[in-house]
Amino acid sequence: MAGNEGLKVLGLQVSPFVLRVCMALNTKGVSYEYVEEDLSNKSELLLKSNPVHKKVPVLIHNGKPICESLVIMQYVDELFAGRSILPTDPYERATARFWAAYADDKLLPAWYGMVKAQSAEERAEKVEETLSAIQHMEVAFAKCSGGNAAFFGGDSIGYVDIVLGSFLFWFEAVRRVYDLEIINASNTPLLAAWAERFVGTVEAKEVVPVPDVDMAVQCINKLHAPAAAISSQ
Amino acid sequence: MAGNEGLKVLGLQVSPFVLRVCMALNTKGVSYEYVEEDLSNKSELLLKSNPVHKKVPVLIHNGKPICESLVIMQYVDELFAGRSILPTDPYERATARFWAAYADDKLLPAWYGMVKAQSAEERAEKVEETLSAIQHMEVAFAKCSGGNAAFFGGDSIGYVDIVLGSFLFWFEAVRRVYDLEIINASNTPLLAAWAERFVGTVEAKEVVPVPDVDMAVQCINKLHAPAAAISSQ
Repeated sequence: MAGNEGLKVLGLQVSPFVLRVCMALNTKGVSYEYVEEDLSNKSELLLKSNPVHKKVPVLIHNGKPICESLVIMQYVDELFAGRSILPTDPYERATARFWAAYADDKLLPAWYGMVKAQSAEERAEKVEETLSAIQHMEVAFAKCSGGNAAFFGGDSIGYVDIVLGSFLFWFEAVRRVYDLEIINASNTPLLAAWAERFVGTVEAKEVVPVPDVDMAVQCINKLHAPAAAISSQ
Repeated sequence: MAGNEGLKVLGLQVSPFVLRVCMALNTKGVSYEYVEEDLSNKSELLLKSNPVHKKVPVLIHNGKPICESLVIMQYVDELFAGRSILPTDPYERATARFWAAYADDKLLPAWYGMVKAQSAEERAEKVEETLSAIQHMEVAFAKCSGGNAAFFGGDSIGYVDIVLGSFLFWFEAVRRVYDLEIINASNTPLLAAWAERFVGTVEAKEVVPVPDVDMAVQCINKLHAPAAAISSQ
């Protein structure tokens, strides 16, 4: 296991992907330097560290960059001692990787599509996709430890918890803007209870940067502006 | 490490994702039963094993299903003895995961977008994206072992080789239909030499199902039909 010398996170306060990296590092109890990026004026360090995507998060470890949140989380898990982020059993690891990919490949595009939809029709379609995707995750969570698990990771948060949990402050922003509860006590009661537990964990509370719902609301409203303009024409 | 009893692959001859799973199992030298699916009439076993995506490939191991090609490859690597598919060094593992994700998230949508484009303009845009993405992978390959590696995995094929290599017979189909060489000796000389080495490996040659370029050409022509109809109007 390596030391944590020279650990730097290039981040953005409003990015769920950055949040994951910070939570993964918190899970391992390693300290790191956090550097907020300005995406309208990206630093030389960011451009040099992630020349392919030019995006945050980037974890820089002893001068070497690692990019993409899921890749970084697995790197952190493999490198540092402390509680495992991924399960140790190969089948459970595969299941965790499956649901993390599902959250990113199905749930995320659906709710992001909803947020940036340019018509009420398109938005309704994406709302339906979002609720269908979260329903799949409710069923997946019900199967964890025979329905008695506190988290996808068991007694403490793990890979899928961090991935899905990183979206929660955006879901809160969606609730404020659209009055839509993606996770709620009626349709997804297990995930609703899970979300309450999740935000109370040390790993989530310690997160730097602190997720900013107001900023997420502003982002949504900015994306929403063209649609509002269209509907008022 | 587990035995290989009860290993079954639900597949489709024309799927690069299925090919990956077969190549991963070949790399480990484990035997398996291959079952070809008919996507127009999916088997009960497929629907039960992958109720979320209802897609191939599915690996069924001792009655338990594992879905999604990258997830399956990592499961196979973690479970079975034999040559490692992912590198053992954590930083190299992260790099391999990064490029595998890049191939699936950037290169694949670009060339698939090209194949199903409905206008010459859209196709030209996707051709450009495809060539740009493959250029990034040429640069990545140049960095492997200081430019002297036979494969992304070093002396033998590994994770990124299998992921990118699974596209090669589709690239050949693209060449036949559009007269476009995605990998060629002028623009991507290192990958062109890599591709020749790759198709000569035991792991690629042993693949069940045998990738069928003619079938891929038919698939492209089927997707291409509406565009041809538009341009002939």
